[in-house]
Amino acid sequence: MAVRVSKAERQRLLREKINENPFYTDDELADMFGVSVQTIRLDRMELGIPEVRERIKNVAEENYRKVKTILGAEVVGELIDLELGKRGISIFEPTEDMVFVKTKIVKGQYIYSQAESLALSLIDAPAALIGVANIKYKYPVKVGDRLVAKAEVIRQRGNKYFVWVKIKVKEKEVFRGKFILVALEEDFLKKRSDTVEVGN
Amino acid sequence: MAVRVSKAERQRLLREKINENPFYTDDELADMFGVSVQTIRLDRMELGIPEVRERIKNVAEENYRKVKTILGAEVVGELIDLELGKRGISIFEPTEDMVFVKTKIVKGQYIYSQAESLALSLIDAPAALIGVANIKYKYPVKVGDRLVAKAEVIRQRGNKYFVWVKIKVKEKEVFRGKFILVALEEDFLKKRSDTVEVGN
Repeated sequence: MAVRVSKAERQRLLREKINENPFYTDDELADMFGVSVQTIRLDRMELGIPEVRERIKNVAEENYRKVKTILGAEVVGELIDLELGKRGISIFEPTEDMVFVKTKIVKGQYIYSQAESLALSLIDAPAALIGVANIKYKYPVKVGDRLVAKAEVIRQRGNKYFVWVKIKVKEKEVFRGKFILVALEEDFLKKRSDTVEVGN
Repeated sequence: MAVRVSKAERQRLLREKINENPFYTDDELADMFGVSVQTIRLDRMELGIPEVRERIKNVAEENYRKVKTILGAEVVGELIDLELGKRGISIFEPTEDMVFVKTKIVKGQYIYSQAESLALSLIDAPAALIGVANIKYKYPVKVGDRLVAKAEVIRQRGNKYFVWVKIKVKEKEVFRGKFILVALEEDFLKKRSDTVEVGN
């Protein structure tokens, strides 16, 4: 439990915290300051700080522009961090239409698509293909879960990139995948792609 | 090149061929009989045999009803063969909206979804989850490609199923994946699923 401070001091600290990390939710900030979520909302309004969803969108906007292998809009979820050739982070909240009807569990396809598009985003080349993906689903994902995916280029050999993607819901890892991607040159985009062999 | 036969004889053989294997395309049948595709179409009309797409749908209808772990409608593509607990085949034709804009290559996510849903279809249990998937994309897939996926249960240990899925376009293998699935009992559908650990 945090020590209570004056409203002015709390608002000063709140602004500082959000500048440091724009992705804190109102819930997390309320916990941090030991006040209600409603108080945080009022503070934000007085300070003219948009809600977390809006803040994420603003940061993501810039990152989408950096992506080279695919369109920014093709990245599944919000791309909140991207260092081309190195690492990236995306946040994705699956919706009702993405679950298997019987189990109410989000289809692997959608979790996979977050990982796949994030892995592609990292590659510093005009185009890239997925060659191999070794993936593990550790816990079922449900609607309401906020998937935070972190991807990292682990190794690069010639035009082959080894990328690890780990997805967490809160502190729990729900998915991890190792991808091998093949970076392609500009002229690939001009020629017929069915002559390209991806897997070894 | 086939030996030319009388029209009556050809139509008799045509009906026989299609009965044997309802999935021959008009192209393949034309090659088989050494006549034009137009001739095959006219023959079919005279014999009241629907086109291959329709024939596939009819067969698939029955197979969807056999699927237990997910809804038949959740199987991606047409399920043209299913032996619960053993093997299955599906056909899927990706559409324009499924490609990456820059490369015009079908997103892995969609090929993956065909494989994932087919693997799930094989399991003879009220529900199932994907635990592990090791997949390889061998050639890029484009719109117009007809993906034929064959899946087989290779091994079963307790409630774990090892399923291989191979996807071909014509004679070329474009994808292969090894899935480990966990079959779940009826009571899973009643309790909270976030307590279930999937990976080993």
